[in-house]
Amino acid sequence: MTAPDLSAHAPLRIGVVGLGRLGKRHAQNLAYRVRGAALAAVCSPLDEELAWARGALPAAREYRDYAALLDDREIDAVWLVTPSALHAQQIVDALRAGKHVFCEKPLSLDLAECERVLREAQRQPHLQATIGFMRRFDPSYRDAYDKIQAGLIGRPFMVRSQTCDQNDPDGFFVRFAPTSGGIFLDCTVHDIDVARWLLGKPNAKRVYAAGTVALHDGLREFGDVDNGVAICEFEHGRLAMFYASRTMAHGNDTGSEVIGTAGSLAVGRNPRLNRVEIADVHGVRNECTPTFFDRFEDAFLYEAQAFVAAVQSGEQSGATLADALEATRIGNALRRSLETGQAVTL
Amino acid sequence: MTAPDLSAHAPLRIGVVGLGRLGKRHAQNLAYRVRGAALAAVCSPLDEELAWARGALPAAREYRDYAALLDDREIDAVWLVTPSALHAQQIVDALRAGKHVFCEKPLSLDLAECERVLREAQRQPHLQATIGFMRRFDPSYRDAYDKIQAGLIGRPFMVRSQTCDQNDPDGFFVRFAPTSGGIFLDCTVHDIDVARWLLGKPNAKRVYAAGTVALHDGLREFGDVDNGVAICEFEHGRLAMFYASRTMAHGNDTGSEVIGTAGSLAVGRNPRLNRVEIADVHGVRNECTPTFFDRFEDAFLYEAQAFVAAVQSGEQSGATLADALEATRIGNALRRSLETGQAVTL
Amino acid sequence: MTAPDLSAHAPLRIGVVGLGRLGKRHAQNLAYRVRGAALAAVCSPLDEELAWARGALPAAREYRDYAALLDDREIDAVWLVTPSALHAQQIVDALRAGKHVFCEKPLSLDLAECERVLREAQRQPHLQATIGFMRRFDPSYRDAYDKIQAGLIGRPFMVRSQTCDQNDPDGFFVRFAPTSGGIFLDCTVHDIDVARWLLGKPNAKRVYAAGTVALHDGLREFGDVDNGVAICEFEHGRLAMFYASRTMAHGNDTGSEVIGTAGSLAVGRNPRLNRVEIADVHGVRNECTPTFFDRFEDAFLYEAQAFVAAVQSGEQSGATLADALEATRIGNALRRSLETGQAVTL
Amino acid sequence: MTAPDLSAHAPLRIGVVGLGRLGKRHAQNLAYRVRGAALAAVCSPLDEELAWARGALPAAREYRDYAALLDDREIDAVWLVTPSALHAQQIVDALRAGKHVFCEKPLSLDLAECERVLREAQRQPHLQATIGFMRRFDPSYRDAYDKIQAGLIGRPFMVRSQTCDQNDPDGFFVRFAPTSGGIFLDCTVHDIDVARWLLGKPNAKRVYAAGTVALHDGLREFGDVDNGVAICEFEHGRLAMFYASRTMAHGNDTGSEVIGTAGSLAVGRNPRLNRVEIADVHGVRNECTPTFFDRFEDAFLYEAQAFVAAVQSGEQSGATLADALEATRIGNALRRSLETGQAVTL
Repeated sequence: MTAPDLSAHAPLRIGVVGLGRLGKRHAQNLAYRVRGAALAAVCSPLDEELAWARGALPAAREYRDYAALLDDREIDAVWLVTPSALHAQQIVDALRAGKHVFCEKPLSLDLAECERVLREAQRQPHLQATIGFMRRFDPSYRDAYDKIQAGLIGRPFMVRSQTCDQNDPDGFFVRFAPTSGGIFLDCTVHDIDVARWLLGKPNAKRVYAAGTVALHDGLREFGDVDNGVAICEFEHGRLAMFYASRTMAHGNDTGSEVIGTAGSLAVGRNPRLNRVEIADVHGVRNECTPTFFDRFEDAFLYEAQAFVAAVQSGEQSGATLADALEATRIGNALRRSLETGQAVTL
Repeated sequence: MTAPDLSAHAPLRIGVVGLGRLGKRHAQNLAYRVRGAALAAVCSPLDEELAWARGALPAAREYRDYAALLDDREIDAVWLVTPSALHAQQIVDALRAGKHVFCEKPLSLDLAECERVLREAQRQPHLQATIGFMRRFDPSYRDAYDKIQAGLIGRPFMVRSQTCDQNDPDGFFVRFAPTSGGIFLDCTVHDIDVARWLLGKPNAKRVYAAGTVALHDGLREFGDVDNGVAICEFEHGRLAMFYASRTMAHGNDTGSEVIGTAGSLAVGRNPRLNRVEIADVHGVRNECTPTFFDRFEDAFLYEAQAFVAAVQSGEQSGATLADALEATRIGNALRRSLETGQAVTL
Repeated sequence: MTAPDLSAHAPLRIGVVGLGRLGKRHAQNLAYRVRGAALAAVCSPLDEELAWARGALPAAREYRDYAALLDDREIDAVWLVTPSALHAQQIVDALRAGKHVFCEKPLSLDLAECERVLREAQRQPHLQATIGFMRRFDPSYRDAYDKIQAGLIGRPFMVRSQTCDQNDPDGFFVRFAPTSGGIFLDCTVHDIDVARWLLGKPNAKRVYAAGTVALHDGLREFGDVDNGVAICEFEHGRLAMFYASRTMAHGNDTGSEVIGTAGSLAVGRNPRLNRVEIADVHGVRNECTPTFFDRFEDAFLYEAQAFVAAVQSGEQSGATLADALEATRIGNALRRSLETGQAVTL
Repeated sequence: MTAPDLSAHAPLRIGVVGLGRLGKRHAQNLAYRVRGAALAAVCSPLDEELAWARGALPAAREYRDYAALLDDREIDAVWLVTPSALHAQQIVDALRAGKHVFCEKPLSLDLAECERVLREAQRQPHLQATIGFMRRFDPSYRDAYDKIQAGLIGRPFMVRSQTCDQNDPDGFFVRFAPTSGGIFLDCTVHDIDVARWLLGKPNAKRVYAAGTVALHDGLREFGDVDNGVAICEFEHGRLAMFYASRTMAHGNDTGSEVIGTAGSLAVGRNPRLNRVEIADVHGVRNECTPTFFDRFEDAFLYEAQAFVAAVQSGEQSGATLADALEATRIGNALRRSLETGQAVTL
C-alpha cells in the first residue's frame, strides 16, 4: 500500500470508528471544526449510533463492519474511538490498509501488543499513527510546555500530576474494573505521558504505587482501588508523583505541576469551570469542571486539527506509538507495585 | 421585500462586510465553525482584504461595493464589521433590501440615527437585526445571567463593570479619538449593555461621570480621557458603577460584578489568560488576556451561532436595536456629564 | 500643661475610655501586647464593663467619670473608644489636660467641631493626637503603601475602595441610623482616608454619590441607604470610586485597589478568612472574614504599637486630625450629594 | 520531685534555653505576648545572645549552663530551642528536675533516644512535655482540623503535605547535612506529624521514598537530596504523600491537603505573603512567604499560649513525645527507603 496522495488542498478523508460519547464529539469536530478534514465515513455496529450520525453529521458513508471501512479507497485515515481491547489489532489493520491512524488511548494494556503495533508502524513510516493523549493539546498544557522550552523555569526535574474524577455514586466505572486495567492504566497513563513529555522523555527506572478504596468496595475483588498514588523515578534525577482518584466531591480535578530549578508551573490547580466567582453564604467560590469531557473540550478539537496538519506536513504531532508504549509499560509497573507492595524496577 | 425562505436545512447565506481584524474573525467563524451558516460573499474596498479572503476562506463572491452586495439575491443576511459611522445607514439599507442584519457595536453615536434605524426595523419585523454586544455570549457572562435568573443571588440591585485595555504605548487609539465618541461611547457601552441585561433592563434615570488623562495627553484636545469612571442610577433602586481604562499594565482587564440581596457574582475578576500558574521570583502569578480579541474569542463564535439560530427560529437573540439605542443614550449622557461636571438626568 | 516626661524606658501610662467591644480589644492590646505601654486606668459608666476589666485586665485604676480620669496625673495618654458624638469635646478636654490622645474614628460628623479640635491641637503641638483609621496599619495596606512609595506602580492616579459589611438580618445598625451620619460618614470615611493616604493627600474638588435601599427599609426615614456608591475627584487628575454596603451575604468584604501608570495593587480582593480552601459540592471556596473586627485584628494592634512609638519619638503616626477633618468634609459632601442628586463641589 | 504549684494567677515561670533566631522569637513571645507566662530566665553559652536578651527582654536571670538553670527553684518550665542533638538528654534532665518541658522538634533522630525520653516522661506524668510541631497551632491548620472533626469532608483518608524552602543560593543548609538527618527527618517530619494528626493518628505500615539533587551537589556525599518525595501507607487504608524541597524559587511553600469522602481541605495552596495582589507586566501575582519563620509567626505564638494553658489545665496540648517518636520512626524509614530504593515496612 502507499500513502494517500494529499495535495495541499485535498481534504483528509476520515472514517470515524465508534460513536459513543467521545466518538460523537470527535466526529462533530472533524465534520464542522477542522479545516482540511472531511468526515467521509462513520462505522458503528449500533443502529442508534448510525441514526445519530445521520441527523447530526453531514452526509457520510456508513459502515457496520470495520474491515469494510478499511476497504474504502476513498478514506485516507481512520479515527478509532473503540473499546480499548480492540485498539491494537485495529491499528495494525488500518496501517496494513494504508490508512493514517488516530486512536484514543490506551494503545493496549498489554506490552507485547504495543510492541507488535510499533513493529507494524515501522514498516509504514509514511503513515501517521498517533495515540490520543489529548492533554498535550490543551492550551494551558501547551503553554506550560512552551514556557519550559523557553527556559522559564530553568531545568525541569519534577512533575506532580493527577487525574481525579468526580465521584459517581452509582459506581458505574466499577463495572469496567475487570477490563480497565485498573486505576493506573486507566487514569494515570495520562499523567505518565504528561510527565514524560514535560520532562523531555526520560526513561523510567523505578516506580512505587499504593492505593486505597475510599468508597467503592466493589473494586476490591479486582485488586483495584479508587484512589491511587505513585512515585516514578526517571533517569537523570527526574521524578514524578501521581495521584488518581474516582471519588472527588467537587468535580473533575485534573492538573499537573512542573518544578524546575528556577520556578514551577502549575496547570489547573483550581479546576474552575469558567470565569465566574460566586460570593454567598458558602464563602467565595467557583464551580468546577464536572468531567474530563468538559475540561478538555478544546483539547479534543486542537488534537484533531493537529493530526490533520501532521498528515499534511508529514511531521509527527502528539504522542507517538512509542510514547503510548512507554505509558503502558510504566502503568503496568505501577499496577504490579500496587499488587506486591514493592518497588518495581524497569 | 419578504424575508428569505429558510427551510430547516437551507443554510443562511451570509455576506460579511468589512474584513479588518475583527471582520476576518467573523468571516472565519461563519465559514468554518457555525453550523447552518454559509459564507456566501465578502465585501471590502481594500485589495489586500479581498486577497486574504481568497486564501483563508472558502470560495465566496467578492464585492467592493456594499450596494452591489445588497443586490445579491443569494444572500440572506449581512454581517457588518465596518466603521461605526457607517453602521446606521448600512443597517437601514440592508433591512430595506430584505436582509437580516448583524452589526458590530455601536449602532450609532447619534441618538436620532439610532431612532431612525429602529423605525426602519419596525417596518420589517420579520427580519433579525442585532448589535454585537458579544459579552452576552461569553460563557461566563451567560452562566452569571442564568444563575441570576435562577435566583442564586436573590434580587440583583447593582452592577460594577469595567472595560480596561492594556496600554498601547504608541497611543494608536488616540488617532481615533475624534470619531470614537470618547471612552464612554467606545468602551463603556459594553458595560452599560451588561448592566441593563443583568439587572432586567431597567430605565436609566441619572448618570454622573468623571475621568482623567493618566498617560495619553493627546486626548485632551478632544475632551477625552484615558481613564473614566461613572455612576448610573436606574429606576427601582438599581445602580451601576463603570470604569473604563486605556492604560492597564497587565492586559485587557474586562469584567463585571452583579450584587444581589443574597450574594454576588463576579465575572472575570482576574483576567487570567489560561489555567497556568507560574511560581518564580515574581511570586505566584498568572498571565492575562492581552486584548478583548483574545478574551472574547469564544463569545464571537457563540454570538454568530446564536444569530443563525435566531433567524431560523424567528426569535430574537442578543442585544436588540432598542438595547443598542439605550446604550448610546446612556453613553451620550456620560459624555455630557464628563464635559459639564454635572449629573445628567435622563 | 507640659507633655509627660517619657524617658526611653518609662512606659506610656494609658487610660482607656469606653469598654465596649472595640474598647475591650484596645484595652487588651495595650495591656498585653504593646511594648512600652502600661494600661494605667479604665473609664466606663457601666458596672459590667468595669467588672470585665477587673477580670480580664491587669490591675488598673477605675473611673466612671472622664473628667476624673483627666485629673489623674499618672496618666500620659487617653484612648477614646466612646460614642462618636463625644469625640470632639473629649479630645479637646484631653489636650487641655496635657494628655496625648488616641481617638477612634470619626473625629466628628460636624466640620466646625473638627476645626475646633484642630485649633486646640495646634496650641499643644507637643501632644500626639491621632484618629484611629486602622487600615493604615493593616500589614497588607501598609505593604501596598510601601510599594507605591517605592514606585512599583508608577504614578498612582486612582483608588477604588469599599467597606462592605455582612448583612445583619436583625438590622441592628438601623437603630444607629439617626446618629451614624449615614453610610458615607459611617463606612466610607475609611475609604476616603485610604484614598487620600495612598494618592498622596490630594485635595478633593468634587464628589457625587448615589445609593439604594436593598434590604433595610427602616433606613428610608433617615434618608440613609444600605448600599452607597460615590465618585470623588481630587486635584491633579486623581480619582476615587467608593462603595459601601450593609448587605453582603458572604462576610465583611473590605478592600481597596490603587491604579497607577505602571500597574495596580489590590488589597483584599478576596476577603478570605485564612489559608484554607475547601473543595466540595459547592465547588472550590474559601470562607470570609465575618466582620471588620476579625479582618483588622492585627491592624488594631499595630496601630496601638505605632501610637506608643510615635509618642516616644515625637513623630506623627497614622491619621492626623487634619486627615480626619478631610474625611469628614468629603463624607459630608457625599451625604449632601446623595440627598440632592447633584454633584457637590468642595 | 513534684510539679510546681501553679495557682490560677501565678504565672508560669519559664527559662528559655538557646537564643538563636528561633529562640529569640520564643523568648519575646513568652515575655510580651503570652498571658500567664513569665520569662524568668534565659540560658545561652554565647555572650552576644545574652547581651541581646538584656536589651530586648524584660529583666531575667541569665545562665550559661543548662544544669544551673535546672537548679533554679523559681523556674517551672524550660523552653528548649537548642541543637537537635541535645534535645533528648536535655528533656530527660528537665523532667528529672521537675520542670515542664517545651522542646523544639525533633525529639531525636535516634529512635532509642526517643524511647528513653518517653520512659522518663512516663515516670513524671504530672509534667507537661511537648515537642514544637507548630503547624498544629497555625490558625489555618487548626481550622482544617476542626472542620474535619465536624465532619465537613466526610471520612478523611489521604493527606498530601509538603515542606518546601526557598532556595538559598549559598547552600547554607548543606553544612548541616551531616547532622540534620537528611531532608525527610529535617523537613518532612512536620508533614508526617500533620498527616498523623489530621488522619486520626493511624499507625504507619509501609513507606517509600525517592529524591534528587536539583541544585546542591554538596549533599551527595551525605546521601542527602534537595528534593524528596515519599508515600506513607497507614493502617485502615489511609495514605499520605510528602514532598520536601530546598530549592523553591518563589519562597517557602509549605502546605497540606486532606482528602475525604465528601470533600477536601487545602491549607496554604498559594503561599501568599499577605492580602496584596499586584497587576503589572508580570501578570496578576502575589508575593510569597519567604521563610517558615514568616509563614508560621502566629503559630509560634499560639503554641506558646497553648503550652501555658496546658500546664494550667493539666491537659496535653500539641504534639506529645509519642507523636514525636512516631515522626522520627517514619522519617527514619523514609531515609532508609531513599538509601535502599526499597519500600520499608514498619
